[in-house]
Amino acid sequence: MERIEHRACFGGWQDVYRHESSVLGCTMAFAVYLPPQADKRKLPVLYWLSGLTCNEQNFITKAGAQRYAAEHGVILVAPDTSPRGDDVADADGYDLGKGAGFYLNATQQPWAAHYRMQDYIVDELPALVEANLAATGARAISGHSMGGHGALTLALKHPGRYRSVSAFSPIVAPSQVPWGEKAFAAYLGADRAAWAQHDAVELLKTAGEKLPLLVDQGDADEFLHSQLKPELLKAAAHAAGHPLVLRMQPGYDHSYYFIASFIGDHIAHHAKALQA
Amino acid sequence: MERIEHRACFGGWQDVYRHESSVLGCTMAFAVYLPPQADKRKLPVLYWLSGLTCNEQNFITKAGAQRYAAEHGVILVAPDTSPRGDDVADADGYDLGKGAGFYLNATQQPWAAHYRMQDYIVDELPALVEANLAATGARAISGHSMGGHGALTLALKHPGRYRSVSAFSPIVAPSQVPWGEKAFAAYLGADRAAWAQHDAVELLKTAGEKLPLLVDQGDADEFLHSQLKPELLKAAAHAAGHPLVLRMQPGYDHSYYFIASFIGDHIAHHAKALQA
Repeated sequence: MERIEHRACFGGWQDVYRHESSVLGCTMAFAVYLPPQADKRKLPVLYWLSGLTCNEQNFITKAGAQRYAAEHGVILVAPDTSPRGDDVADADGYDLGKGAGFYLNATQQPWAAHYRMQDYIVDELPALVEANLAATGARAISGHSMGGHGALTLALKHPGRYRSVSAFSPIVAPSQVPWGEKAFAAYLGADRAAWAQHDAVELLKTAGEKLPLLVDQGDADEFLHSQLKPELLKAAAHAAGHPLVLRMQPGYDHSYYFIASFIGDHIAHHAKALQA
Repeated sequence: MERIEHRACFGGWQDVYRHESSVLGCTMAFAVYLPPQADKRKLPVLYWLSGLTCNEQNFITKAGAQRYAAEHGVILVAPDTSPRGDDVADADGYDLGKGAGFYLNATQQPWAAHYRMQDYIVDELPALVEANLAATGARAISGHSMGGHGALTLALKHPGRYRSVSAFSPIVAPSQVPWGEKAFAAYLGADRAAWAQHDAVELLKTAGEKLPLLVDQGDADEFLHSQLKPELLKAAAHAAGHPLVLRMQPGYDHSYYFIASFIGDHIAHHAKALQA
């Protein structure tokens, strides 16, 4: 992997790396914040999954997370949201194809060749990070919107892999909302049984590990009632006896101003689990 | 003025307004962060002047300043960097014309009609803010690069107008560096005596008010030796007996990662002066 950005930030370094992903079959970029403590010892890692249309830059430029990562001694890794490059399939619209990988392994054409974001996020990227950076094997995961869906589903699908999980404004039931229905039909085909494996509300029904979920949701979010529907997560968690802290934040919308306002709470939450 | 953005942020509101500027003769946008305390009382205002190529968005999306403004109860106002619109003169290159107003009143054609950023920042915008928002008349000023130049020169030229001033990576001696020479020749003409009225190093020689200057400068800044030259400010302040705290920050560059890392110190500095 090659470092393509390297900028001092809160006593540490905000870097961006480029590498050839064998899982995705393309060149990918990911961002890493190394807090000052990384000079002296290995640190745990919080993986951040961004939402539709984003790449590895949005979180590192807009969330203001580095301050809290420096306080707590946690590495932040922010990958891109889909495979990239001229030979990667794409579609019209912002909610399918590039920038809209939905953190799953596609089974349908023309997507299956490159759209394997689940394997990338869960396996290839952590292996790369832990082999090349001052990272321990302790991992946490969070994200926003489509990335909140990714964080919840990947944690629920991989018991023991993450010490903690949280989400901002997640798509909690993609099988039941337009964003998810469009993407899952394209990537996974018509069989809704396959969709359930990538749907947090469905996964909660059978989750063996009861990893507590921390979710922040703005009540002025423009996608609240059409795409996000946190009440479905609340009901599913209640039915399954799965611990959930769902915080409805009055007045907040879907933007990075919302994430910036509460990312400090999330990083403190993850740091506590990662350092326990 | 018309509010065109309104987003909850750190318990307050990150807003953007659009208005017709009579000074500039065009429609302008400016950003306002209203901290939560603004619900109950009027608050002092920190004006932030951005650098070349920026508009009213850069600071509010990338600096992470709202957290500190909410802590200290300070309103942040971030204007655009030049007049805008189809009938405003422009030039090729990022360092002259739109996005490069240099916070002065142009005297030369084709600039003089609209490029009156000094009057806009010092008079028209504060009058608008104080008439329409929960703002007291207590003002502070800061900025980055071209905006650091703006903050220093506007404070030095207007004794008593600002309670405090600071800058990140400022152009301290525009008369002596390529960015300033190009802009001043175009906006002010060939007479260098006129340039001295917009050059912090020159203004320090005759400044009546000894308002302390706080300046942060990264020592890995790519423009340090060609455009910024903080050693000239240090020498001028020393010669004039003008109080200056110049902090050379090891490893930091010219980016918003640098600003984000130290904006908390600056807002604390301004809050102390504004609330004294």
